[in-house]
Amino acid sequence: GQQGSADPTLARGECRVALDPVTAGKLARHLDSAIADSGDAIVHVESGAGRHAHFDDAAYAEQAGVAIVAEQDIPAARAAADLILCVRTPSESQINDFREGAVIVALMTPYQNPQLIQTLAQRGLTSLCMEFVPRISRAQSMDALSSQAAVAGYHAALLAANESSVFFPMLTTAAGTVRPARVVVVGAGVAGLQAIATAKRLGAQVWAYDIRAAAREQVESLGAKMIDTGVDASGEGGYARELTDEERAQQAEALARHMGDAHVVISTAAIPGRPSPRIISREMVEGMKPGAVLVDLAAEGGGNCELTQPGARVEHGGVTVLGPLDMASSLSVNASEMYAKNLFNLLTPFMKDGELSLDFEDAVLGPMRLTEAGRITHDDVRARAEDAA
Amino acid sequence: GQQGSADPTLARGECRVALDPVTAGKLARHLDSAIADSGDAIVHVESGAGRHAHFDDAAYAEQAGVAIVAEQDIPAARAAADLILCVRTPSESQINDFREGAVIVALMTPYQNPQLIQTLAQRGLTSLCMEFVPRISRAQSMDALSSQAAVAGYHAALLAANESSVFFPMLTTAAGTVRPARVVVVGAGVAGLQAIATAKRLGAQVWAYDIRAAAREQVESLGAKMIDTGVDASGEGGYARELTDEERAQQAEALARHMGDAHVVISTAAIPGRPSPRIISREMVEGMKPGAVLVDLAAEGGGNCELTQPGARVEHGGVTVLGPLDMASSLSVNASEMYAKNLFNLLTPFMKDGELSLDFEDAVLGPMRLTEAGRITHDDVRARAEDAA
Repeated sequence: GQQGSADPTLARGECRVALDPVTAGKLARHLDSAIADSGDAIVHVESGAGRHAHFDDAAYAEQAGVAIVAEQDIPAARAAADLILCVRTPSESQINDFREGAVIVALMTPYQNPQLIQTLAQRGLTSLCMEFVPRISRAQSMDALSSQAAVAGYHAALLAANESSVFFPMLTTAAGTVRPARVVVVGAGVAGLQAIATAKRLGAQVWAYDIRAAAREQVESLGAKMIDTGVDASGEGGYARELTDEERAQQAEALARHMGDAHVVISTAAIPGRPSPRIISREMVEGMKPGAVLVDLAAEGGGNCELTQPGARVEHGGVTVLGPLDMASSLSVNASEMYAKNLFNLLTPFMKDGELSLDFEDAVLGPMRLTEAGRITHDDVRARAEDAA
Repeated sequence: GQQGSADPTLARGECRVALDPVTAGKLARHLDSAIADSGDAIVHVESGAGRHAHFDDAAYAEQAGVAIVAEQDIPAARAAADLILCVRTPSESQINDFREGAVIVALMTPYQNPQLIQTLAQRGLTSLCMEFVPRISRAQSMDALSSQAAVAGYHAALLAANESSVFFPMLTTAAGTVRPARVVVVGAGVAGLQAIATAKRLGAQVWAYDIRAAAREQVESLGAKMIDTGVDASGEGGYARELTDEERAQQAEALARHMGDAHVVISTAAIPGRPSPRIISREMVEGMKPGAVLVDLAAEGGGNCELTQPGARVEHGGVTVLGPLDMASSLSVNASEMYAKNLFNLLTPFMKDGELSLDFEDAVLGPMRLTEAGRITHDDVRARAEDAA
């Protein structure tokens, strides 16, 4: 295929931090208000950890019970930690700094990182995978995939509007009226709904495509229209079931028809830990208007579109296909605050008298555990790690 | 000062075209519906002229009375033209292609291009400067500065939201509530009002800064708040008068206070043909929050901010200062359509029986004339050209 051009604004790298200063302070007080009030630190933040999210060391140090760890003291602080909170899985060498039996929590992308998960097991760490928070009501406030997808969906709509050669809103000026842009959002999960809401706020006409008929109510409550494909693919856990070839063709035809009228397409159909489903073919892009923009939010998993190149901009027959990475990360302040609250809500029920005591019989914690006491405890992840070894 | 990094998304180059296909067809029919219906061409569009605005040659050729000029025929078509419609002033060599007595209309930026204006005069062209459409009610539909400023203001708000590390809207999620962003818009002219409207659409809290007290009503009608400086600087023609040092200091102090609370600042105070007023000092940027974004829409005239570098991104103490160029041009489809309508509304009253007959006693056309019959007829522009020679 053709070569896309790498674009630094489409791949900013990780800018989030696992705790913002306010949540760090709340965590310290929750763990032990007596100690926090005495001035002793309970929560230790590595110097510069919040830099890319614009939280400086001083903002953390202001919080009772929170201390900044100077660079030269980081290895010792890591070795002493009982609980390690991260955004992404630490590197091999970082993992080697931690002590046996410590608990580590992160967005682990375990299927993409089998070697690192193996290392976490070998080092005797207990690891919790934030992607595996179950989709049950009680766990909504802990669901980092949802909170981060909301950020990414909002940002995808802004990126699309910023790249578009037409206005999103209707505009009435002395020189005539500009009609609102037509936007198609593929996938009406958390990211898709937030993209829909944002495009609607900006005044666009929005159509949503989702193979789960159950998405209709939410789509319509945002003022968007559902593309009718005549196929229902609702499955377990809020994700979609496998479809027959005929059903797929019927869906593709309905989607292609709406894409041909659209100024902007935003695709958001990502399945955590798996390659993104290929929904948008080269032909469907070739059926779009010259000047149209496609933002593929599933680029991290390879993309929903055949032409997507992760982190790059592809021009194809007058259509621009963007494959942004780290979309949640680029709203680093709010994304970090929301992630920190997810961690706080997840862990504080298991903190008592200054101690962390995890219960893996718990309906939320159980499915999240990847490694403990030297082995990979999660069946699917262990199978993947064994395949990779 | 520090070196900014050039950013291709901040300087896309000219993407507009002076006529979109629909307006080209309307113009042909207006000029002579009999000829247009016969299939003879009246409006000639150079092949590829609409390429960057996503209007292809075929879309023009579909219109009755409009023909595409193949590349090899362009010099002959230029030599034969009675009326030449452009977005920007043509180059020296293009000007030499046109015949004596032809009429040319463009956004001429005459003060920055004294040499080109001299050439237009020497070649005996009659040139009309779109920046000099007077600000009277009758000319609103011809006012390209306004139509293009509306595009630029909308786009500036999107660019700012896209760069911001915080959400513009308030967001209520399972992981807590995100407060709306605080946005300050400097200058409440057409561009500023459109930036305000767009930031409000996205859900931000918006404050506007304008030295003309008369701007208050429009700002408040958009749901934004006016920053109260205690100084009124309303002047003639909708632009601001010169201020005393004391008044300036009082204003700067009020603006700096609001900038210190803002997540985003969008500055839009451009005066056509003059360097942009310096409103935002280095110190004011240094008083902003880490992670804040400043979009300086006045970058083409040097910028409202002391730190702005046209076409580049400057990071200063955690604040990102963007100096975008060609902001109207990047919404190339709508910007071209609006500009084409401005041209149509301006010129068609002077077209009769297939002939163009300009009346420079007219209150709109008179002030727009730069050159005619071998000389620069516009006093200010002539003075500038003589200074430059």
